[in-house]
Amino acid sequence: MDIFENLKNSAIVFDGAMGTMLQKKGLKTGECPEYYNLSHPDIVYEIHKSYIDAGADVIETNTFGANRIKLKSYNLSDKLPEIVKSAVQIARKAAGDKAVALSIGPIGELMEPFGKLTFDEAYSAFAEVAVEGEKAGADLALIETMSDILEAKAAILAVKENTNLKAICTMTFQEDGRTLMGTDPVTAVVSLQGLGLDAIGVNCSTGPDMMADIVKKMAEVSRIPILAQPNAGMPHLEDGKTLYDITKEQFAVETKKLLECGASIVGGCCGTTPEFIKLLKAEVHGTEKDSIVKKYTAVSSNTKTIFIGSDYPVCIIGERINPTGKKKLSAAIREGNFNLIYDEALSQEKLGASVLDVNIGVPGINEEELMPKIISQVQNIVNVPLQIDSSNVRAIEKAVRVVRGKPIINSVSAKEKSLQEVLPIVKKYGTSVIGLTISDDGLPKNADERLKNAEKIVKAALDYGIPKEDIIIDCIALTVSSEQTAAMETLRAINLVKSKLGVSTVIGLSNISYGLPERQFINTAFLAMAVSYGLDAVIVNPNDKITMDILNASMVLSSRDKRCERYINTYKKDDGTNKTPVSSVEKKTDVNASDML
Amino acid sequence: MDIFENLKNSAIVFDGAMGTMLQKKGLKTGECPEYYNLSHPDIVYEIHKSYIDAGADVIETNTFGANRIKLKSYNLSDKLPEIVKSAVQIARKAAGDKAVALSIGPIGELMEPFGKLTFDEAYSAFAEVAVEGEKAGADLALIETMSDILEAKAAILAVKENTNLKAICTMTFQEDGRTLMGTDPVTAVVSLQGLGLDAIGVNCSTGPDMMADIVKKMAEVSRIPILAQPNAGMPHLEDGKTLYDITKEQFAVETKKLLECGASIVGGCCGTTPEFIKLLKAEVHGTEKDSIVKKYTAVSSNTKTIFIGSDYPVCIIGERINPTGKKKLSAAIREGNFNLIYDEALSQEKLGASVLDVNIGVPGINEEELMPKIISQVQNIVNVPLQIDSSNVRAIEKAVRVVRGKPIINSVSAKEKSLQEVLPIVKKYGTSVIGLTISDDGLPKNADERLKNAEKIVKAALDYGIPKEDIIIDCIALTVSSEQTAAMETLRAINLVKSKLGVSTVIGLSNISYGLPERQFINTAFLAMAVSYGLDAVIVNPNDKITMDILNASMVLSSRDKRCERYINTYKKDDGTNKTPVSSVEKKTDVNASDML
Ligand SMILES: [Zn+2]
Ligand SMILES: [Zn+2]
Ligand SMILES: [Zn+2]
Repeated sequence: MDIFENLKNSAIVFDGAMGTMLQKKGLKTGECPEYYNLSHPDIVYEIHKSYIDAGADVIETNTFGANRIKLKSYNLSDKLPEIVKSAVQIARKAAGDKAVALSIGPIGELMEPFGKLTFDEAYSAFAEVAVEGEKAGADLALIETMSDILEAKAAILAVKENTNLKAICTMTFQEDGRTLMGTDPVTAVVSLQGLGLDAIGVNCSTGPDMMADIVKKMAEVSRIPILAQPNAGMPHLEDGKTLYDITKEQFAVETKKLLECGASIVGGCCGTTPEFIKLLKAEVHGTEKDSIVKKYTAVSSNTKTIFIGSDYPVCIIGERINPTGKKKLSAAIREGNFNLIYDEALSQEKLGASVLDVNIGVPGINEEELMPKIISQVQNIVNVPLQIDSSNVRAIEKAVRVVRGKPIINSVSAKEKSLQEVLPIVKKYGTSVIGLTISDDGLPKNADERLKNAEKIVKAALDYGIPKEDIIIDCIALTVSSEQTAAMETLRAINLVKSKLGVSTVIGLSNISYGLPERQFINTAFLAMAVSYGLDAVIVNPNDKITMDILNASMVLSSRDKRCERYINTYKKDDGTNKTPVSSVEKKTDVNASDML
Repeated sequence: MDIFENLKNSAIVFDGAMGTMLQKKGLKTGECPEYYNLSHPDIVYEIHKSYIDAGADVIETNTFGANRIKLKSYNLSDKLPEIVKSAVQIARKAAGDKAVALSIGPIGELMEPFGKLTFDEAYSAFAEVAVEGEKAGADLALIETMSDILEAKAAILAVKENTNLKAICTMTFQEDGRTLMGTDPVTAVVSLQGLGLDAIGVNCSTGPDMMADIVKKMAEVSRIPILAQPNAGMPHLEDGKTLYDITKEQFAVETKKLLECGASIVGGCCGTTPEFIKLLKAEVHGTEKDSIVKKYTAVSSNTKTIFIGSDYPVCIIGERINPTGKKKLSAAIREGNFNLIYDEALSQEKLGASVLDVNIGVPGINEEELMPKIISQVQNIVNVPLQIDSSNVRAIEKAVRVVRGKPIINSVSAKEKSLQEVLPIVKKYGTSVIGLTISDDGLPKNADERLKNAEKIVKAALDYGIPKEDIIIDCIALTVSSEQTAAMETLRAINLVKSKLGVSTVIGLSNISYGLPERQFINTAFLAMAVSYGLDAVIVNPNDKITMDILNASMVLSSRDKRCERYINTYKKDDGTNKTPVSSVEKKTDVNASDML
């Protein structure tokens, strides 16, 4: 059955806890819960059956910890295929015409840089479970209780690349509202939903009441259905037993409220029983939900989301990690010394960059090997999202796979070859992409040609199923000293592209002033103008103080800095002193973060 | 007869020399030529008659030096009324149905600051001649051979305010193309044509061939017919007699060519005789001329014209001479110490201001007395045009009278009272005026209200006969910290006003950043934006280096700095050094001058 079809008519209900139910039925601390699929299939069946009888529309297989790496601690790695097969078959038998979700929990070891697990190791382990689960007849995959969005991404890609299963992914959050690895609910959704998920959500974590805020935040940005599976309140120990602190009636009422917060699928996690699910089912029965498609442009790192568009500050994309025209950096990259890159990353973040462009294009290097390595390292030392900038499509894809968050790909153009090569990667990994308004006819001559090229990119993207909000059109600033009217054409194009196509816009500032003295004045003036024509993002050197100062002012004038708060915070004078801060932007690194929602 | 009616069909011809003709007929060096009107009316008549017989459409009375001040040297001041009366009557008798122009030459003494003659003294002397001439039956006044545009202005105002005579004014230029006082032909036309003249032009100076360039320059900017009266070539002494070096045939052919350069009235000056005029008349007979109305906005000082509009650099109007919020300057003005004003004038000109705003509004001073005094002094020490900024309409008018050049009046608004009080002054003195888009309903709420107020000002101005090119609309930049969307509304208004009304635009930068730290960043960003929306002029502190730097760059980007020449000249590095000039604009003070034509 396709549960997502049913969703159109009514909220649907997942089952409740498996682990705490197994403990009630005799599972001891230190025993492998998943081995019960082989040793006590009757007990597992009984639990599933009682959830079906309680009215669950979907039950989850007893495979939460069933992966080769975790099973190693029980010396059961070789049993993995058998365990998964049995688990799915038991659930299948109990489910009748209801759906069986293959539960895929975390590997149980931390991924780099928090631990030693590599992306490829996690991916392989997840792929094995997914393949076995599909073979045994699971209806969908439920990647659950995730804390690391990169681990979740490995699991999602493993499912999508190796099976035809639909996939849901739920994250678990701590009391501070972030996952163990620091990801907030908005960033989790922004980072993962584009990877081909059919639903996303939150499980475990807390009781239903405290989950409301997380669900609301997810719903603000989610373009797919939201699944919420709270615990039966908060756990506490009583007489040596773990008890949960709310009743099934409270659970049912509070969990129902999560539907109003934006969830359309609910169920239970730790401490919930078939009784909880039965009351919940009764409570939510027949609830309908309009799905509202969210329109916004956003990119993310592990810990923050940057929104891009007219209602947000202009997104400052640091341009400094780029060896073009930089002899020292080129040589260092060629010699395998990346410290200059890491220094630039840290420095640009400190100077106020919201996103960092990473380009390592030096002739003679193995970009496919180096780009993912450098991207991984850069994302470990800064908190801002990354923009992967390369003309090597394979290098782009390899880097995109290992990004913790939603990156920007720089770039696709309106050239046929570029559209065909780059857009499938954008679609598959749910990234944003810069759409360069160059076509097979060359550079655009005027605003109308820029618009035409932008239209072509947007249309092609839509044909691939890419939401147009993920496209950021680069209206191309040409060298003003060689073609003076080009600057105004770029400005006109920014306005046209935004108003006619409804997509965000970006420009790079490096070309426009080429060949002129005091280039920063030209760059800065053009940036102020562009902001007034609706520019949403700029690829810029955040170390140009005058450019950043005027950009900050431009945000005030274009109402992108609401109530001038950001500007005043940046420039307000300390008591008695009359000095401008050395870095004009030091104080605002968190302004464009996900806490705006 | 109304010669200006005839002009529609054909070029018309003035007579030739009187002075050199009188010398031939016996006038000796040291004799008063105008006294011949009383002593030898027959000789004067004979000369007039021979010009009429030669075909002149207009003859000029023998009154070139007939003013009370000049006649004093002959002890003939008291004879002035008699001399003028006789001169006009003689000419009248000779003229038949042809027209008699009352010749009004320079006073013969230099005006302040070049000499001691005051505006009022000159004005009174001219008024006396004009009144007597009109009474005696002259058809029009020909103010001629002027070197000082302020003396010309005194004469024009004397004629217009005291008689109903039509008026023509001709200037005389030296070999360097400027008058003795430094005025170029473009500046002469820009400064004088709006004072109610019916024609303007050039006389004496040179032979007709060398006059072509002057006539062309005048024609580029003149909205009224042009009169050209060259000498019979260049003078040289032969056997103790002054001879002129071209033949009457050469004269006729070359002077005819001045019609192609833009003149529509021709005649002769020194050395020409009735023979010259006869051949000239035959040469130009029946020549028709399309009058092309020139559309441009310009203001002028004694020595330069500043054009304002899309094809020119943004006009930088220095805002510093304004006591508002300046305690020291207010106190100095109140004490009658104007040195601070003169310092600011010099400093702003040096920093690149193209026009200086002069506001002395301090409570308790006699602005009507002080404003003309300060304006006179400021124009004596700087070369740039002035903007007279006052809420006291009588102070404005008194200052406007004594400006050497065409000033800007700051300002008229869309309030009924303001329109009624200010526009008549703009019309009478042919000034430019800033049209403030405030109405009786108060500050404009959005771009459309600004447009509506601008429309009202333009319509009222047209009703007064003011060309709309003389209106510069201030789209009003409000304080962004108190109303954040206002900045974008001002930008929209600039675009609307320019495109819908076809007039130039200006803003003042002082309000927008009020209440915010680092105000120059806000001012600068807004200025760059405004330039990209079509702003033509800005009232600004030219001592804000960042503002001037970004303005210079903005002119490159908006194609107002053709081929980036101005920018490159300002910022190009000297060999070996890498420094920005301390003053970013020092080198460009002459860029927006009349030599662009
Ligand atoms: Zn749980
Ligand atoms: Zn659970
Ligand atoms: Zn002459």
